[in-house]
Amino acid sequence: MATIDISIAQTIEEKAIKANQAAKSLRLVTELEKNEALYALAEHLEKNIDFILKENRKDIEAAQKKYDAAYIDRLSLNENRVIDFANSLKEVAKLDDPVGETISNWTLENGLKVEKIRVPLGVIGMIYEARPNVTVDATGLALKSGNAIILKGGSSAIHSNKAIVSVMHSALSNTRVPKDAVQFIESTDRNATKALFKMKQHIDVLIPRGGGALIQQVVENATVPVLETGVGNCHLYIDREADTEKALNILINAKTDRPAVCNALETLIVHEKWLEKNATELIEVLNKHQIQVHGDEKAVRFIPGASLADETDWKNEYLSLEIAIKVVGHLDEACDHIETYGTKHSEAIVTENQETAKAFLSMIDAAALYHNASTRFTDGGALGFGAEIGISTQKLHARGPMGLKELTTCKYVMTGNGHIRA
Amino acid sequence: MATIDISIAQTIEEKAIKANQAAKSLRLVTELEKNEALYALAEHLEKNIDFILKENRKDIEAAQKKYDAAYIDRLSLNENRVIDFANSLKEVAKLDDPVGETISNWTLENGLKVEKIRVPLGVIGMIYEARPNVTVDATGLALKSGNAIILKGGSSAIHSNKAIVSVMHSALSNTRVPKDAVQFIESTDRNATKALFKMKQHIDVLIPRGGGALIQQVVENATVPVLETGVGNCHLYIDREADTEKALNILINAKTDRPAVCNALETLIVHEKWLEKNATELIEVLNKHQIQVHGDEKAVRFIPGASLADETDWKNEYLSLEIAIKVVGHLDEACDHIETYGTKHSEAIVTENQETAKAFLSMIDAAALYHNASTRFTDGGALGFGAEIGISTQKLHARGPMGLKELTTCKYVMTGNGHIRA
Repeated sequence: MATIDISIAQTIEEKAIKANQAAKSLRLVTELEKNEALYALAEHLEKNIDFILKENRKDIEAAQKKYDAAYIDRLSLNENRVIDFANSLKEVAKLDDPVGETISNWTLENGLKVEKIRVPLGVIGMIYEARPNVTVDATGLALKSGNAIILKGGSSAIHSNKAIVSVMHSALSNTRVPKDAVQFIESTDRNATKALFKMKQHIDVLIPRGGGALIQQVVENATVPVLETGVGNCHLYIDREADTEKALNILINAKTDRPAVCNALETLIVHEKWLEKNATELIEVLNKHQIQVHGDEKAVRFIPGASLADETDWKNEYLSLEIAIKVVGHLDEACDHIETYGTKHSEAIVTENQETAKAFLSMIDAAALYHNASTRFTDGGALGFGAEIGISTQKLHARGPMGLKELTTCKYVMTGNGHIRA
Repeated sequence: MATIDISIAQTIEEKAIKANQAAKSLRLVTELEKNEALYALAEHLEKNIDFILKENRKDIEAAQKKYDAAYIDRLSLNENRVIDFANSLKEVAKLDDPVGETISNWTLENGLKVEKIRVPLGVIGMIYEARPNVTVDATGLALKSGNAIILKGGSSAIHSNKAIVSVMHSALSNTRVPKDAVQFIESTDRNATKALFKMKQHIDVLIPRGGGALIQQVVENATVPVLETGVGNCHLYIDREADTEKALNILINAKTDRPAVCNALETLIVHEKWLEKNATELIEVLNKHQIQVHGDEKAVRFIPGASLADETDWKNEYLSLEIAIKVVGHLDEACDHIETYGTKHSEAIVTENQETAKAFLSMIDAAALYHNASTRFTDGGALGFGAEIGISTQKLHARGPMGLKELTTCKYVMTGNGHIRA
């Protein structure tokens, strides 16, 4: 076993070193050259759809024995999906290049000029699960922001990812972006992932994307800095002074539009006075959308068929058409509940009272807060970022949807005329 | 042993929970109230100088048996130093409050308003060594930026830190900033530090400040995100087209102004053509300032008394009046050397050729780059940040000197009118 581990770690270190060298070359590649590379990637993916779909079939066949339909769906490619990959690369090419931007500048009293400039992070390690689209999306965003990327996808998508990367490599061979800027780790051994965790001298950031277990494994074991994407245990608070129509529309949109995603609603907190007035309509829409309710004692009394919620209902994401409902008598109770059980992802209030809204928006600490709008907007595309590599639930570096800017850092450039410090 | 560990961890968790509660209250404290608290801290420190110095004597006496004069000096307080603490708190009070700033805002086509707002990080864990000034400086910056702070200083400064914190606690009791916003860990057990590493649910960031061993221990063991401050193996490259006077002034300033700090110069890289012309003057200033030289083979031939440098000379900080000198024939060689041995802290070039300067500034990846100026300017005070909590040598979140802004994160606040996602 020890020998295998060492050889895996060595192979991965070689790839990381190559990525690092490529990142150095990328410092001198222009925006135009990066865009040309992205269009080349798009064109080659479109030209090689048959090959990619053939390889994807292998993954699907292997997965059919092991996984459920939802999993197979995430893994499956078809012509349209590959065309979508290509189109999203073209969209990224159209976005402004963040690299080289002067973030701020000033001149000191002694005449020393200070300029804070945006530069690429360097090498991004992307650790993800079944979705082959991450292979393309993450590569496009990394290259556009001047970064090299090391891709470590899930073992169930190994043939699809290998095919996509080989197509991308051949596309890059005629561009100014070095092929080595895209490294792919073929080994499906778990030690392959672990080897990435500690390569601080070669990798600037790890971005895990997938289930909670994967993310926790990376956060707990990596010495390379991590951009944590994560769990969204999202709440909607319907205030005493909420407009009924807005409240019910937002509730249904946040809960049912795509229940399995991280910005979907998991818990409804409702003011008892609003509930007393609107119980009939609330029950009606919940039934209409076949939403199964787990409530606290008060909620259970109001809502027929609701089961009593326990700690796990408040704490976990359902990611399905289930909801937890808590009834409160005051905004503070709602805020306390969110503080206790929320994951600082997306939290919403519906109210016509501006003061109540303001208090909620000041008190709650989360990446995205909504007043009279659905939590479903927490998404790079929906908020106008152009594209996203994930949604950060941490506070350092990036919070919320992460686009191109979030894949950069800065450097300070000081220009003097023989300046020394007294 | 196991029992002791558990009880230390429990005590620290209780403190972390209190800090977290205080951080919640701080969300609603105004800039004026925070400033009043900082002035109260300053006033109480000034009033209690005798008490603080008396407690500091205990640390000095204990340290005299174990440490050298430089260490004792860092640990020692006197009336002026305590007055400096108070003054620096008043300076922080005068700085703009970063909290509440609208970083950016826009309106989506559907009318949903998006606002990105600056908010405090929450709870900062500060892990540091002998200098008692960190206890005051870090507290001032944390409170001004709306954060609670957990202080874990070095065991050799325990009496000084305890005294300072008790004075600060009594100062806060009449302000709107809760006393619990400043937590102090008295235990000098190493497990006390380790307990902080894993408290992700209570602590938002750890900032280690001190020697390389301390920083590495935190980086390698913490699951709480870390802002790494660190080692500065800084280089100066004197180009073929460097002005002699500027080059020598910058060399001497960077090397001798304060050799023990992280922005001091450690390695000089010099173009052979410049060296051939300026050897006499270079040797003269090195001798005048009693700088001991370790050179590569070429440098040793030019500089009398220089010893041959080995790998450790290129790799490590001297933090004293020693310097490593490498002679190169081309800019690329200089860049490669910096890429290999640099710590991405501060790197300088002296040249009159703008194209050469531009190439250096584009190619080198570091927090701070200098053209015709000394590396000694990498400092929050010197660059006009007002104050700094440390100098980040990492790329995520903050790079270079970290002031108040670097102790904040953001949240997105979306305001709608019943907006749902289609």
